[in-house]
Amino acid sequence: MRFHHRGYVSGDPRVEPAAGVGIDRPEELPDAIDVLIVGTGPAGMITAAQLSQFPNVTTRIVERRSGRLEVGQADGIQARSVETFQAFGFAGRIIEEAYRITTMSFWRPDAADPSHIVRAKRTPDDPAGVSEFPHLIVNQARVQDYFAEFMANSPARLRPDFGLEFVGLEVADGGEHPVTVTLRHSSGPREGQTRTVRAKYVVGCDGARSAVRQAIGGTLAGDQALHAWGVMDVLTVTDFPDIRTKCAIQSQDGGSILLIPREGGHLDRFYVDLGEVSPDDHGAVRRTSIEEIIARANQIMHPYTVRVEHVAWHSVYEVGHRLADRFDDAPANGTSPRTPRVFITGDACHTHSAKAGQGMNVSMQDGFNLAWKLGHVLDGRSPESLLSSYAAERRVVAKDLIDFDKQWSTLMAAKPEALADPSELEDFYVKTFEFPAGFMTQYQPSVLVADPEHQACATGFPIGKRFRSAPVVRVCDANPAHLGHHARADGRWRIYAFADTATPGQPSALTDFAEWLAHSPDSPVVTHTPDGADVDAWFDVKVVYQQSFEDVDMSSVPEAFLPRIGPFGLVDYEKVYAVDPQQDIFELRGVDRGGAVVVVRPDQYVADVLPLTATDRLAAFFAPVFLTRGAAS
Amino acid sequence: MRFHHRGYVSGDPRVEPAAGVGIDRPEELPDAIDVLIVGTGPAGMITAAQLSQFPNVTTRIVERRSGRLEVGQADGIQARSVETFQAFGFAGRIIEEAYRITTMSFWRPDAADPSHIVRAKRTPDDPAGVSEFPHLIVNQARVQDYFAEFMANSPARLRPDFGLEFVGLEVADGGEHPVTVTLRHSSGPREGQTRTVRAKYVVGCDGARSAVRQAIGGTLAGDQALHAWGVMDVLTVTDFPDIRTKCAIQSQDGGSILLIPREGGHLDRFYVDLGEVSPDDHGAVRRTSIEEIIARANQIMHPYTVRVEHVAWHSVYEVGHRLADRFDDAPANGTSPRTPRVFITGDACHTHSAKAGQGMNVSMQDGFNLAWKLGHVLDGRSPESLLSSYAAERRVVAKDLIDFDKQWSTLMAAKPEALADPSELEDFYVKTFEFPAGFMTQYQPSVLVADPEHQACATGFPIGKRFRSAPVVRVCDANPAHLGHHARADGRWRIYAFADTATPGQPSALTDFAEWLAHSPDSPVVTHTPDGADVDAWFDVKVVYQQSFEDVDMSSVPEAFLPRIGPFGLVDYEKVYAVDPQQDIFELRGVDRGGAVVVVRPDQYVADVLPLTATDRLAAFFAPVFLTRGAAS
Repeated sequence: MRFHHRGYVSGDPRVEPAAGVGIDRPEELPDAIDVLIVGTGPAGMITAAQLSQFPNVTTRIVERRSGRLEVGQADGIQARSVETFQAFGFAGRIIEEAYRITTMSFWRPDAADPSHIVRAKRTPDDPAGVSEFPHLIVNQARVQDYFAEFMANSPARLRPDFGLEFVGLEVADGGEHPVTVTLRHSSGPREGQTRTVRAKYVVGCDGARSAVRQAIGGTLAGDQALHAWGVMDVLTVTDFPDIRTKCAIQSQDGGSILLIPREGGHLDRFYVDLGEVSPDDHGAVRRTSIEEIIARANQIMHPYTVRVEHVAWHSVYEVGHRLADRFDDAPANGTSPRTPRVFITGDACHTHSAKAGQGMNVSMQDGFNLAWKLGHVLDGRSPESLLSSYAAERRVVAKDLIDFDKQWSTLMAAKPEALADPSELEDFYVKTFEFPAGFMTQYQPSVLVADPEHQACATGFPIGKRFRSAPVVRVCDANPAHLGHHARADGRWRIYAFADTATPGQPSALTDFAEWLAHSPDSPVVTHTPDGADVDAWFDVKVVYQQSFEDVDMSSVPEAFLPRIGPFGLVDYEKVYAVDPQQDIFELRGVDRGGAVVVVRPDQYVADVLPLTATDRLAAFFAPVFLTRGAAS
Repeated sequence: MRFHHRGYVSGDPRVEPAAGVGIDRPEELPDAIDVLIVGTGPAGMITAAQLSQFPNVTTRIVERRSGRLEVGQADGIQARSVETFQAFGFAGRIIEEAYRITTMSFWRPDAADPSHIVRAKRTPDDPAGVSEFPHLIVNQARVQDYFAEFMANSPARLRPDFGLEFVGLEVADGGEHPVTVTLRHSSGPREGQTRTVRAKYVVGCDGARSAVRQAIGGTLAGDQALHAWGVMDVLTVTDFPDIRTKCAIQSQDGGSILLIPREGGHLDRFYVDLGEVSPDDHGAVRRTSIEEIIARANQIMHPYTVRVEHVAWHSVYEVGHRLADRFDDAPANGTSPRTPRVFITGDACHTHSAKAGQGMNVSMQDGFNLAWKLGHVLDGRSPESLLSSYAAERRVVAKDLIDFDKQWSTLMAAKPEALADPSELEDFYVKTFEFPAGFMTQYQPSVLVADPEHQACATGFPIGKRFRSAPVVRVCDANPAHLGHHARADGRWRIYAFADTATPGQPSALTDFAEWLAHSPDSPVVTHTPDGADVDAWFDVKVVYQQSFEDVDMSSVPEAFLPRIGPFGLVDYEKVYAVDPQQDIFELRGVDRGGAVVVVRPDQYVADVLPLTATDRLAAFFAPVFLTRGAAS
């Protein structure tokens, strides 16, 4: 956390100084804005939170409800989401209050007496150690609270506009604010009244029944709902010994339960199999009472009993797997495609079962992917063409998610005898863990992701996947650190220079690279950083030496890694790292001992890996990503 | 964090339900209260924070200033304090924003050219790994903010009463509220007006010039000030390579600097030696200008230069070591001593140099020691005699602190040639580290600390020292945990039962102990817990098994460790732990394989260690600590 560099900060350093549109921000929604976000679910809130870091961009987020969400349905937080929360500064706090999944138990009919269930297996939740972040369960309302706090503390001082419902929109062919949105006051003194807002861009984060999707002519396509589940959040007294462990429970008669303990030590979520639904059911299954769900749970868990003392929430749903035909409003396959003006994210794009705990997570990554691109375009850093990459990148992820969830929920609903092997369910869980943990996403080469020509320079940072952190030591204060955890959701590109073996300061490939980066007119930092801005305003440049911290003389570190910042021109010493000899990042991530450069996008995805000498390639990568300086200023 | 057990909690679970005096708490200071705390420094705030957990006790805390502290002087946070913050729920957040000390550098005149300083040595800050908590630097204002948040979120909804200055007090011989305190409005519309408040107890946390101390006839005694230091918090540009590392710097001419990097990445604190002060100086040294301090710093640090770009705060002080002759108002050595009604804490009791970073830390432990005792007495749990232990326990600590600080500041001020060995300073630092880290405090046997007859049952939990946590695994959810970190500052006594080797549930010493604890009329839990209260209301009872979590069957765990709590009679599963096989707590803390009981006070100090069979001793220990149940209700 950097503060005091503009003078002494007395209060909470998480509260950044207001800037730009955050100074005297109007309470009332203006008539013309840059970005209108519809919906304050996880996708909308992360989009707004990221945009709140761009104080030159007027972003507003509207919500039909009159205030904060009280009880949300989503609760699964995969490790990739916690990694994302780290960048937004609240990973530590949400971990403190969440339930943490470390193992999963699989219960099956006892071979000796199939009317009884027995614990067949217990597997670690993250068997391969794919992330240093935990897998959590916490109500989505709290996730939204933390994003709300972040955006309120950000320079743009963003706060949701509650009590405004999306009615419709029209996109004009030109003009500064081509999208005209009609909203209706859904509560308060003006309830029922409509108004219009003109926006440059609109982001629909308004859920599975998205009105924004409908407004751009999008539809969901996918399979029929065939299987029903009762879901309940309950306080119980039970003799079931694994009541505080995540469990998949399969009973003799084919019924199954997915049990997910919740935060706070006492609440549990049960997904109770209600069986196949006949095509002529016409929603009757949705009227299944809570008593029936509880009775069914007790049947499945025999010989254990579950006495429900309090029901916090319950529902019945049928599994549907559907994908939107479009993620934005750009004309499909036009000869001269216009860049998109309206986007949809999250459940508006993809719906599926809740049981893999994916929905909130994938939705947040949708928003994280889109928001920085909007910020860069509207801040004048980048061309509009960047925005086409949102649908291209996220539609693949959504498709993969739906395929995965189909497999998982089919397995969960299968009768034991229908499985090829009794352990098929747990084997699938262990084998595929990286996917639901959120780390299988790999964006394909594009203007924002380089081709993998030099992947060999750092095999542990796959191009197109998220930057996987590793331990290092900060040189200036010998603090142990996790390199990736210092990356904040501040919209900056990151350039990590991994040094070659030379003694710091001696002639070397690193020294040449640093000289080029700081001074060459071809350097992206020199070319693209606006005049008058701090040298680290758009690019966060760090170095990792192969030596241990005692052997790095700060006086010999090139100035590219010791930027002078702020009104006093202070040196930022926190860009210089050394290996942790116990856990050498060069070994852990397969970094070439001859050095490497790793380029990371603002949403934490690796954009390129290249040798220290490949300066032309680095310059060429950034050339189309940024507008020329002349155009930006 | 336990929540949802009384029904669904939608918001921040750190906000506990208001109870007792926290419901409809009056804004205005009442005429008659239980505890009046004078001063909102670290000692006062921790006292108030702890008492805010007792909703039957009316506590108010007054402060002369009209609002929150803007810039504090204290900044050193030893590991023991972070351990304490853990119990108050904000260790994680303060670690995030603090500077962390991991190493210390010692700079001395270069033997080759003594006009130049060189780095002579770099030592780890906690060479022996005495704590899992870090050593931090963060402004005391932020510490106070976090305590303020905790007390506002606690059942008693405690908030400071700003703009009220302590004028004087009188203690009557009897009556329900024997202390009459005169206060003056120091700001606001009633500025200058006085008023009186009647209190059962008063705690003076009003600093080195304590008016409360004066009111009870206390005086500070100690040595003369002989050595002056300039202190400045500054933003600099420098070529000194260790500017972000804690350094002791000694120059050829005997001048020295203690350099302490501050939070936020850029601010540094310099303690600059201004030399000995002649007895007829009459405070002239205190008029040393900031320019002179900066010039002196540059002299000492030659050949390096420090250009100060911004001064956040500076001061000049002379080291004084003084100890109060009394810590409370109880008549000294009276034949029938009355229990105390007025206490002083923190700087009101002990003043010393700032350079060992001790003041705020020892002051907070003063408050932590006193507050739960006040809470227990006023809640009707314990006899008034408990209150005499405050002065008895804390005066020894204050004396040790002053002795330590005298040695350290004398060494810091010594000319290189005056040292027996050039490395004397760093050797002292490494050798004595446990003291400044806050872990040398060991209370002597008393009604609150048992004699060490059975210390051999758990050699790693020394009786009278703070309970040193170790890793374990929570059985119900296989979560890795640190046993001591689950202890909250909730005023409860803790009883940790370390199991013998038997399989859980089988006849064993543990099973017998659990049966006795849950059911015997002699059990402290049975005898002292009030009727109608949850069984864990006053005693937090946990068990640690020697098996790994997979081998502990929750169905076989005795009910003493699975209490039923709250309106729904839910089972609390989070009291049952297993060893972490990689770091076996039995080995790490020398716990007898035959089992042991460790009794821990509400302020985290070990009160007794005893065998599982010593139930008579356990009952006898608690008998005088609690009033009988009849007297309490």
